[in-house]
Amino acid sequence: MPPLPIPMPTDLSILLTVMDFVGVFVFGLSGGTLAVRKRLDLFGVMVLSLAAALAGGVMRDLLIGALPPASLHDDRYLMVALAAGLTAFLFHKPINRLGKPVMVLDAAGLALFTVAGCGKALAYGLSPLPAALLGVMTACGGGAMRDMLVAEVPRVLREEIYAMASLLGAAVVIAGQELDLPPVPVAVAGALAVFVLRVVSVRRNWSAPRAPGS
Amino acid sequence: MPPLPIPMPTDLSILLTVMDFVGVFVFGLSGGTLAVRKRLDLFGVMVLSLAAALAGGVMRDLLIGALPPASLHDDRYLMVALAAGLTAFLFHKPINRLGKPVMVLDAAGLALFTVAGCGKALAYGLSPLPAALLGVMTACGGGAMRDMLVAEVPRVLREEIYAMASLLGAAVVIAGQELDLPPVPVAVAGALAVFVLRVVSVRRNWSAPRAPGS
Amino acid sequence: MPPLPIPMPTDLSILLTVMDFVGVFVFGLSGGTLAVRKRLDLFGVMVLSLAAALAGGVMRDLLIGALPPASLHDDRYLMVALAAGLTAFLFHKPINRLGKPVMVLDAAGLALFTVAGCGKALAYGLSPLPAALLGVMTACGGGAMRDMLVAEVPRVLREEIYAMASLLGAAVVIAGQELDLPPVPVAVAGALAVFVLRVVSVRRNWSAPRAPGS
Repeated sequence: MPPLPIPMPTDLSILLTVMDFVGVFVFGLSGGTLAVRKRLDLFGVMVLSLAAALAGGVMRDLLIGALPPASLHDDRYLMVALAAGLTAFLFHKPINRLGKPVMVLDAAGLALFTVAGCGKALAYGLSPLPAALLGVMTACGGGAMRDMLVAEVPRVLREEIYAMASLLGAAVVIAGQELDLPPVPVAVAGALAVFVLRVVSVRRNWSAPRAPGS
Repeated sequence: MPPLPIPMPTDLSILLTVMDFVGVFVFGLSGGTLAVRKRLDLFGVMVLSLAAALAGGVMRDLLIGALPPASLHDDRYLMVALAAGLTAFLFHKPINRLGKPVMVLDAAGLALFTVAGCGKALAYGLSPLPAALLGVMTACGGGAMRDMLVAEVPRVLREEIYAMASLLGAAVVIAGQELDLPPVPVAVAGALAVFVLRVVSVRRNWSAPRAPGS
Repeated sequence: MPPLPIPMPTDLSILLTVMDFVGVFVFGLSGGTLAVRKRLDLFGVMVLSLAAALAGGVMRDLLIGALPPASLHDDRYLMVALAAGLTAFLFHKPINRLGKPVMVLDAAGLALFTVAGCGKALAYGLSPLPAALLGVMTACGGGAMRDMLVAEVPRVLREEIYAMASLLGAAVVIAGQELDLPPVPVAVAGALAVFVLRVVSVRRNWSAPRAPGS
């Protein structure tokens, strides 16, 4: 997940980079703690941390042809993800107890990755529908890969308002671009939409609909 | 799955495009109905529909470097796959009852995707053996990804004459190119070979051989 | 897995190519015999053989943008992997009895793939940390894909000193490049490090650490 590919003031750019690393770290923790629960070894913990943190962005970059992917270009992404894996390896118990703060940071990561992924896809010339889907893939693909690596059906396909929140944010970004609105406020609005819908849905226990009669 | 990358009369090209969309739709239904059976939510149904319909072609395009993949280039593929997902979400019960017509349309999709995938790989300069394998991957890769997303061993690896039918069609296309035969009749012959072998094998309950003493 | 992208005498280059094919064949056997144990059909055996033998190198080439991947470029890789699949299909029982020689050849494949993968990533301009990870992915990614195709948690994430041995070899290659040492002896040292650590760890039953209190 690179910084948003739109012109912006330096301060905002620094803020976004910091938030991006926070997102990578928290997503990495989700991979690392799952790996510990599944009794994987140190290497498995690191791989799940890398996958959860970076696979979504890697898939997006593979699909738009931005090679090598951003996270193989800038070592800080790998280092943050590996640090998350090591943290999970050593401190999985206290982390698992931090349910709410981890959920809030995860929602922030979801928001930022959605908007950044969508923006990068648009910057590479994709049209709105695929760009929105790639934004969702950037945000949700890492978690899906994390779950597949331990032979589980990805949680994102089964329950909760997670991908739906990401999709809402992607729709905001796309609508803003179609209406020629200025990119920074649109990105902020998109990210807020993801974050608020995700956090509210967890607090209220909302979930996405299942097929009628399934 | 783009239209075949060979020169052809306009009428045939339109027919192929229509058949291509039929293939995408039917493959998408296979993903969507599996997702409903596995009790995934609406998002999961859409993802399995997209994966079943488009992942084979996406893998092929990633491997030959045709980026972004055809289905991210032409929105109609995404829209047809999403329409299939929505149809499966709403009407999974009647669809599951339509065993035979769905199987026949699926065989048509298998035939068309094999021939199109093989032809595109050849057009990108691959030699016959990898081109044949990419044809099979185009036709069977989406179904494999669909099954992996719900943590199941891909059906295509386990049973029935499915990949074998696809392989036969790919062999016909390759042989035709090696013998410098005109591409349109060769493509038709290849697609027919897939279709007939697949439909006959289902009716006669044929299956691919297992290892001796396994 | 292409020959190492470093200048070297012809004899050494031929030796490496032979060892590379041995690695592909043995990795292919691991896929084919697993497929037989899982009662997959002939097609499934071939797919698992191809995946185990070649998917690691394919992932690396996708990520560095070396398209089409080496194994779709040089038909001999596909043919060796398919020959391994057929061998596993026909002779799975005696192969399964050959525990130790297969393990030693597998360790040789692990060593060679690590060093070749790492070297190719460096040759494509990646910095040391991602190059080391891609070396490990080249060597371990095929086995991981093989296990995921039969809906199992990849063995490499769970147990034994396998990826750790690969990581050690990658570290040797990276260190050698950073210190500007001549590439051929560095590659040999890296491969030896992988091989020796792997073989010794199997004989002594070492395994990678699990998280404290997991």
